Amino acid sequence: MSQPHAPAYRKAGVDLLAAEEVVRRLKPLAAATRVPGVESTLGGFGGFFSFPEPGGEQLLVASMDGVGTKMKVARLTGNWEGAGYDIVSHCVDDILVHAARPLFFLDYIGTARLDVDVVEAIGRGMSRACREAGCALLGGETAEMPGVYLEGEVDLVGTIVGAVRRTDILPGGRVRAGDALIGLGSAGLHTSGYSLARRVLLDDGPGRGALLGSGPGTIGEALAAPHRMYLPAVRSYLGRPELHGFAHITGGGIPGNLVRLLPEGIAAEIDATRWETPEIFREIQRRGGVADVEMHQVFNMGIGWILIVDPSVAEIWTGELNPDWGAVAIGRLVPGEWGVRLAT
Amino acid sequence: MSQPHAPAYRKAGVDLLAAEEVVRRLKPLAAATRVPGVESTLGGFGGFFSFPEPGGEQLLVASMDGVGTKMKVARLTGNWEGAGYDIVSHCVDDILVHAARPLFFLDYIGTARLDVDVVEAIGRGMSRACREAGCALLGGETAEMPGVYLEGEVDLVGTIVGAVRRTDILPGGRVRAGDALIGLGSAGLHTSGYSLARRVLLDDGPGRGALLGSGPGTIGEALAAPHRMYLPAVRSYLGRPELHGFAHITGGGIPGNLVRLLPEGIAAEIDATRWETPEIFREIQRRGGVADVEMHQVFNMGIGWILIVDPSVAEIWTGELNPDWGAVAIGRLVPGEWGVRLAT
Repeated sequence: MSQPHAPAYRKAGVDLLAAEEVVRRLKPLAAATRVPGVESTLGGFGGFFSFPEPGGEQLLVASMDGVGTKMKVARLTGNWEGAGYDIVSHCVDDILVHAARPLFFLDYIGTARLDVDVVEAIGRGMSRACREAGCALLGGETAEMPGVYLEGEVDLVGTIVGAVRRTDILPGGRVRAGDALIGLGSAGLHTSGYSLARRVLLDDGPGRGALLGSGPGTIGEALAAPHRMYLPAVRSYLGRPELHGFAHITGGGIPGNLVRLLPEGIAAEIDATRWETPEIFREIQRRGGVADVEMHQVFNMGIGWILIVDPSVAEIWTGELNPDWGAVAIGRLVPGEWGVRLAT
Repeated sequence: MSQPHAPAYRKAGVDLLAAEEVVRRLKPLAAATRVPGVESTLGGFGGFFSFPEPGGEQLLVASMDGVGTKMKVARLTGNWEGAGYDIVSHCVDDILVHAARPLFFLDYIGTARLDVDVVEAIGRGMSRACREAGCALLGGETAEMPGVYLEGEVDLVGTIVGAVRRTDILPGGRVRAGDALIGLGSAGLHTSGYSLARRVLLDDGPGRGALLGSGPGTIGEALAAPHRMYLPAVRSYLGRPELHGFAHITGGGIPGNLVRLLPEGIAAEIDATRWETPEIFREIQRRGGVADVEMHQVFNMGIGWILIVDPSVAEIWTGELNPDWGAVAIGRLVPGEWGVRLAT
């Protein structure tokens, strides 16, 4: 926690070069606002602020995010409640990578014309997810902006504020060669890769009503599947010394998210044959003619969360997490050229 | 602070009946998520959360808001930096009504196609406002959603988290008959009433390049004027027993915002002839043929902030605040039928 302040600027569905340029330009502007209490963001899924006293034992961790282009799927399928669940779940997972427990959540719903039923459905999903996370839906805002939003479209944005004891923060400097990687199953695309998925499966594809593979579910249902919240899975491991790090697999896939946790001189070896790629990803790959490597850079490919753990607990924890969370031993950390090596 | 949890749901540029219905439907969904630490929102400009210990001395106050349709003016005038300043300033003022000092701010920028220069300009404005407020720009998110936003349009959303000592919270139950009302000057429309203003002055009017009145400024410049941040004005009065309440004059004007502070059996008498209505409001009224009463329900009409104070300090504080903040004695509280009576 001694690095200089790096603000938690991120991207959603933004082309990578522009996103990097955004971060490059906003970083000094954010750094100029540093006040007592601001602490390093450790790679940027959440911003850290020590409260009530600067440098204190408890830190607040805050993150703001949007559902992204999955909102188009919510509109197509009418599953607005799912979007409400998604935004809370995504935000909870984003600060959980730092071992933070959520305290409260706020939402913003922007649209051209307010549809009260849509807002209520989103609210139902947010309320359900907040109850699952044990965090309060503390407030929100709805805005009607006909000249800004396309008719019928909705943007949904959330802010989560959580807390973590300084000594429990992940990654806490214990990530090292020999560590085991446990992957937890995803429920589908979660909230990443929807621009590509929509183009291949909807715009240029069979459409949302078509069966996925041999069914019984449809493509629309698979695309609307909820973003899984991993807090209930890993809650009992928080603060355990054998837990070295978490990766939330969002845009960038396993390589893009896991690499942020690796120290110099450490490589992650992932064996993607250890789990079965869910049908929705195979359908996208088949119809889009997308290469393996690109698939893994855009989608979670069936693994939504990774625990980096001491090898002494790997087998036990995998066994504990397997029944409900589809836990699989997916690889390990080794000395070598920094990066993620993925065998498909 | 003993009322049941009422979530801080608000509206921006939304028709009033739909907005009330939204609040009615979301309230129970938010209430169902109540956890230890959640405290009453006292009328809803911010949500209260006691941290680190539930029921403790310090409370976090959080609020999330968007710039609203003023974003259309930012696009027309190219004054994106102003929009960045506006969102921080608006959020700071929203929790300042509860006497909370800002700790940190997060932003969300949604658009069809990311323009790095636009994002940077917004960032400059946010950084400047955060430095003025003494709060940290802790993080943010940019999202590119071509199917949701109209080409070239931007939505800008902010979340502020501040803190207040429980004993300092406003309004703290001291608002009473005899209290004096001190109004502080606004810098223009701030972030309210832009749908009406744009229609009258731009779409059906002379356009942004036309001179406002006899000039020298243009209508576009007047519409893009920044949302004034009142924290520097009132910082030294926070915690003073003679300070009974604050009203942030946003959508709903003086009547809509002041009325939320009045106890049963108390009326506010405002004499709107005590200050000069700025030219921009007179221009809107003249061109739109808008009645006085409607003008006051939509716009701040030149008063962006009201202090409700003990009459013993009214003259001194007005004198102290007059030179920099255009402070004027605008009225008082009297026993009578609950509501705001405004003489124009």
